[in-house]
Formats: sequence, structure tokens, C-alpha cells
Amino acid sequence: MSEPTEVRARRLGGYPRRVTFPVVGMVGGGQLARMTHEAGIPLGLKFKLLSDTPQDSAAQVVSDVVVGDYRDLDTLVEFARGCDVITFDHEHVPIEHLRALEADGVAVRPGPDALVHAQDKGVMRARLTEIGVPCPRHRIVADPADVTAFAEETGGFPVILKTVRGGYDGKGVWLVRAEQDAEAPFKAGVPVLAEEKVDFRRELAANIVRSPHGQAVAYPVVESQQVDGVCDTVIAPAPDLDAELAGQAQELALRIAKELGVVGHLAVELFETADGRILVNELAMRPHNSGHWTQDGAITSQFANHVRAVLDLPLGDPRPRAPWTVMCNVLGGDYPDMYAAYLHCMARDPQLKIHMYGKDVKPGRKVGHVNTYGDDLADALERARHAAGYLRGTISE
Amino acid sequence: MSEPTEVRARRLGGYPRRVTFPVVGMVGGGQLARMTHEAGIPLGLKFKLLSDTPQDSAAQVVSDVVVGDYRDLDTLVEFARGCDVITFDHEHVPIEHLRALEADGVAVRPGPDALVHAQDKGVMRARLTEIGVPCPRHRIVADPADVTAFAEETGGFPVILKTVRGGYDGKGVWLVRAEQDAEAPFKAGVPVLAEEKVDFRRELAANIVRSPHGQAVAYPVVESQQVDGVCDTVIAPAPDLDAELAGQAQELALRIAKELGVVGHLAVELFETADGRILVNELAMRPHNSGHWTQDGAITSQFANHVRAVLDLPLGDPRPRAPWTVMCNVLGGDYPDMYAAYLHCMARDPQLKIHMYGKDVKPGRKVGHVNTYGDDLADALERARHAAGYLRGTISE
Repeated sequence: MSEPTEVRARRLGGYPRRVTFPVVGMVGGGQLARMTHEAGIPLGLKFKLLSDTPQDSAAQVVSDVVVGDYRDLDTLVEFARGCDVITFDHEHVPIEHLRALEADGVAVRPGPDALVHAQDKGVMRARLTEIGVPCPRHRIVADPADVTAFAEETGGFPVILKTVRGGYDGKGVWLVRAEQDAEAPFKAGVPVLAEEKVDFRRELAANIVRSPHGQAVAYPVVESQQVDGVCDTVIAPAPDLDAELAGQAQELALRIAKELGVVGHLAVELFETADGRILVNELAMRPHNSGHWTQDGAITSQFANHVRAVLDLPLGDPRPRAPWTVMCNVLGGDYPDMYAAYLHCMARDPQLKIHMYGKDVKPGRKVGHVNTYGDDLADALERARHAAGYLRGTISE
Repeated sequence: MSEPTEVRARRLGGYPRRVTFPVVGMVGGGQLARMTHEAGIPLGLKFKLLSDTPQDSAAQVVSDVVVGDYRDLDTLVEFARGCDVITFDHEHVPIEHLRALEADGVAVRPGPDALVHAQDKGVMRARLTEIGVPCPRHRIVADPADVTAFAEETGGFPVILKTVRGGYDGKGVWLVRAEQDAEAPFKAGVPVLAEEKVDFRRELAANIVRSPHGQAVAYPVVESQQVDGVCDTVIAPAPDLDAELAGQAQELALRIAKELGVVGHLAVELFETADGRILVNELAMRPHNSGHWTQDGAITSQFANHVRAVLDLPLGDPRPRAPWTVMCNVLGGDYPDMYAAYLHCMARDPQLKIHMYGKDVKPGRKVGHVNTYGDDLADALERARHAAGYLRGTISE
């Protein structure tokens, strides 16, 4: 940001004059960028996208799209030149490129010093442990024999193995029951992190948003239900969650954001253990699936607050608008004609909020989500699950 | 729509396959198109825009923009070729062009037989009178002497004169107090409609949405406050409105939509008379300023429902989400640095919903609006008025 907005505004004279709103550059053209653009339209921002292809989910709906490879520094430098700030749809931009952009004067938010903790699970675990954040027991393991040693240190198999980089939605994660099953993770040539298998009651997520000047807002802690390692249902707020534990989770997320220097949205995925503790599972430094409910369920959505944060604008109210909001992901199924299903869902439930990503249908792929809200959790759950199942084709009425 | 969506979907085979969502073409690149695009993103639609310039409000945020002149039939035909349906940001497309498109098999929604009533106030008054809708007394007048004759028929000056075509936001409307002031309206070479000056208590608007298969939904009747002929504040629902009169207004709007064959959003601007009647002032067959509150105040916004209607999708629930919602327009002022003002407004009121249009600031021009909602009308009004005034520069704190 070579010239501050205010200075630029003063320099301009005469009518008509363009309102000097900033340009937000987003790297990655997935559904998170699509929904961030949607949230940015009422904010009057100019939105610029770096997308792998012109068909990507966000590229379909954004006016100013650069098609290019985010792994190429020259592409990033050129892209950043037209932006007041750059932010991300995913965590895959090489950290050394982000450092080069920062050295070049680009506002990178979240910055590389924060993002490295979302990219590398080994770095994340080391840092969280250092600042006293409760995590599952863990250490980097060298080979299958070392996995057995880790298992013996922590109460035996099964053990969770994760490549420290490149995993998402259950990819890059293995549940290992014996030494002979522990070969695969080491084949990627990436360090492998072993973690105890936590005896958890359920999974929670604490979503917060933090701005460069240190303002932060915390959304209600949600329950996140996974099916086959993929998020299926999110309930906001998490039902029957002890108020003190909820407060602890929010404080933990705020503390992590501050200690790691996160700017923008931070999702802290948590285990609630059978004995009433919370342990950090994963971090994401961008709008997150566990926050999609905020589009229809909170005063300010995670997408709007992410954009406000990366621009250092005052943050919006994160409080819920309804007693209960439920989000269910819509996965691609064997049922190809999603538009006809969509019609049925709208007719059945005029209050249903559908969010489609414009993505090609592949079985198991996230192609959209639905939100429902209301005073009655059972009703909201039934409606969201029905719509998601009907769109996928697993429910025929 | 040469091939129905369902047929097209069945014809396609194999994975990955594109979800066969339709293409909505919108003629006109103003803020209504911008906000309709925003509402269409979660619906997964493909949105195509015919815009006068690449800088228009909607053109800034839409991916698929054709820059061209909506008054040129060839441009319209070419534009419509890529769309499953076309709809409008404004009422200025020549009716004969719309008839030509329909003859060519294009789905034009609303169609020309309906739209002519929003384009021509003479046709509108004649038709509404024919179907028994209460209107101010009116007739087409030939010259200033005829205006005096009309005044004598209806209780004397002042009289309202309107050119039957081309007016909006107070343009094309004159309050005439004597025959010698009645010259100007006749200079445009367009027929002139005289109307009695109604002794109204306040202005109301009844917003409804109707689909081709005849489903319709009615939003709560709102109060609309004008300043210098431009909408300033909308309160939803209209405070202290007699429930029976509110029901009458909704029924009237639904009846007009049915009789005129309106598809999409219909705004019926009304006078509530001092003696407790309602009279129709104007019609608009597109999303309307009096419905902007629905973006944050209703379960389904007018923009989402307009799109659903023109695609003949089941309509969304129009009910309010809060007891009170207030919308105030943001007009351009002498204060150029709207971004700094914007920051202040966000910091002062974290619940404020700002909607900026990306338009150049000109004094008096609508460049955005704000919505507030809550349990307390006085509080919502104060917050919305403060933000609109601060952004315009008429309030310095």
C-alpha cells in the first residue's frame, strides 16, 4: 500500500470522483474466494482474483480474474501489484514467496509468519506446545519403528499419522493400528507427525477474526460432525456445551491468533475429550467450512469479517441472529441433475438457504452447502440434512 | 430456452459434469443488477450482464459482461442468445424490441405486456382504472389550458404533471400551481399526464414477487419517506399501519401483478390518504429501493426472489427476520472521502449493514444504502440515519 487511501482521496479533486475503496487480491479461485467476493460486493470493494483456471468456482463470478499459477513468484508479484492487500482461499502458497512479497512492500494477510503454522503441522504443534496450548501428544517420527516407539510412549496403537504439509479433508491423515501399516505416510518424502488418537466426545470449532490493529471478534463455538474425514454438519452454537468450556475455547482461539500474529479469520478445530477438556486438532487461517453457518446465522458473516480484517476495517458483530443455525455440506453424488433436486428443495422449504459453488459434480466433492436456522434445533437439523441428502441424491423424497 | 434444463441434464453423461444451472441475463448495469448478481451467487446461477459501460456498478463485480446499447435490437438479440431468460435493471428497453425478442423465442421476464405499464404512466393509469384499482384522479392533458380545465374538474390547483415516459426519482414530475407554470412538461414531446395532488398522510410500498406459474409472495408493507422526490428512508413494516389496510395493500399488489401478468418483483408505491384509503402512485417491475431492507431484514431478499421468479423456481419466504428494519439511502455529498467515513460508521455500529454500489460520488446521487434492524424502531432509525448522514457528510460526528 504505497499510498494510504486517505492521502489518495485528498489528492483527487472534482466531481464525479471515484470512491477510493481498496482492491483486495485473493489467491485461489475456490468456493471460499467465491463467497468472499459475494461478501465484498456490499462493502463496495474491488476484488481481484488469482485463479488456476477461468472455470474455478470464484472465477465464474468475479469480474477481475488473473489466471495463473500461485506457485510462481513472478505471477504473484505481478498479481499483487494491482492490489492494496492480498489474502488467500487456501494455504498452499509457498512461504518463501510470501516472504518475498512482504519484502517487496506487499500487505500479505495473514502474513507468512502466521501462515506457516497453518501450512506445516509440525511447526504448528511445536509452537502451540511452546505457548501452552493443549494439544494431543505428538512428535515427528522418523520411520515405522519410530511410530511403534511413539505408540509405546503414549499408551499403544492406534496412532494418527499426518504428513506435516499438503493434507486437507482427511487426505494426508492415516489411522495406524500396527507398525506394518505405517509405511504409506513416509512415501511422500514429507516429515511425518505422529499424534495420539484422542478419545473425544465430539469435535468443536472456535472461529475468530483478528485485524492488524489487534481488534478481534469471536463467533459462538460450534459442533462439527465429520463423515469419512469430511465435514458433514455444523451446529451453531454447539449444543449443551458447558459455558466455561465454550469461553475457554474462544479465549484459546483469540490467544493463538495473537501469539501467532494471525490477521483475518482463524478456525481452531478442537476435540472435546470424554473427560471434559479441549485439545487443538487443526488450524485454518482463512474462512472455514465450520464458519459457513455465519452467512445466514450471524449478524456479520465470516467472509465479511475476513475482508474487513485484512483491510484493517473495524470488525462486524459476530453474534448469532437465531437461537440455532445448522449447516450441512452438499456433496456430489450419483444423482447428476442437481438443478431439479434444487427446485424440489426450494419448494419443500421456503426458508432454506442454499449456497452452490458452481463446481462440477464429482462423487464426494463439496459442491455447496445449505443453512437452516430457527428456534428448534431438531427442526433445523432435519431440514438441513434433508436438503443436503436430497441434493446429493441419497434421499429420494 | 430451446432445451429444458432437465432434458439437458439427462443428455449429459459421465463425471465430472457441470451442474446444469441456467444463465440469467440482466439488461442494465446499475446497482439493482449488482445486488441481483450478489443474490444469484449462492443460487449457483450463471449471470450475464448487458451494461452501458465496463465501469457501471454491476459491471465492476460480474464476470460475464457484454458492453452494449440496450436500445439496439441486434445487441439485445445477440445478448439474449447466451441466456436462458432475460430480465431488467431498469424499465427503458423499448417495448417493440422486447416483443421482437419474445417472437424470437427468448424468455423475457417480466414480458413486454406487463412492462409497458411500468414504462408508460398513461397506459398504467388507464389499465389500473379499468381493473378497479384506486388511483389519484388523472387524465392525459393536451396543453396548459387543458391543465387548468383538469384542475377545475378535480378541485383546483396545485396539480401534478408527469411525462408518461422517462421519469424516475422525481425527474419528469412537476408540481404546478398555476396555468403559466405548466409549460415545461409539454416541451419533451411526450404525452403529459395530470394527476390530482393527493392529500396523503404518508407513502407506503407493497412489494410482491410473482412467478410464471403463478406462485406469489408478499413482503410486509413498508413506509417510504421521500426527500426532494428521492427515497430517503424505508421502515419495515410501516409503523402503526392498520392491519386491514396493510392486507388491502398486499392484495392490491398481488392483484395488479396477476392482472398485468407481472413476473418477478413488483413494487407498488402507494399513498395512504389522510382519510385512511390507499391509492396507487407508481409501479416498478424490478427490485426496488423500497425493498432494499429485505437484504438484511427478510428471510429471502427481493433480489433472490426476483431471480427465483424469473427462472420459475419456487419462491423464498418473504417474512421479516427482525421486528423492525430500517433502510436509508446514502447519497453523494460534498464529502469526497467516503472510505474514511465508512470506517467511522463501521467502528461506531458493528451491527450496521452497509451496501455500497461502487459508483462515482456526485452530489445527490444514490451511491449506496445502509440497513439496520432490531427490536427498537427508534434505535434502528437513529443508527441508519446517522450512518447515511455521516457517509454523505451532513453529520460530522
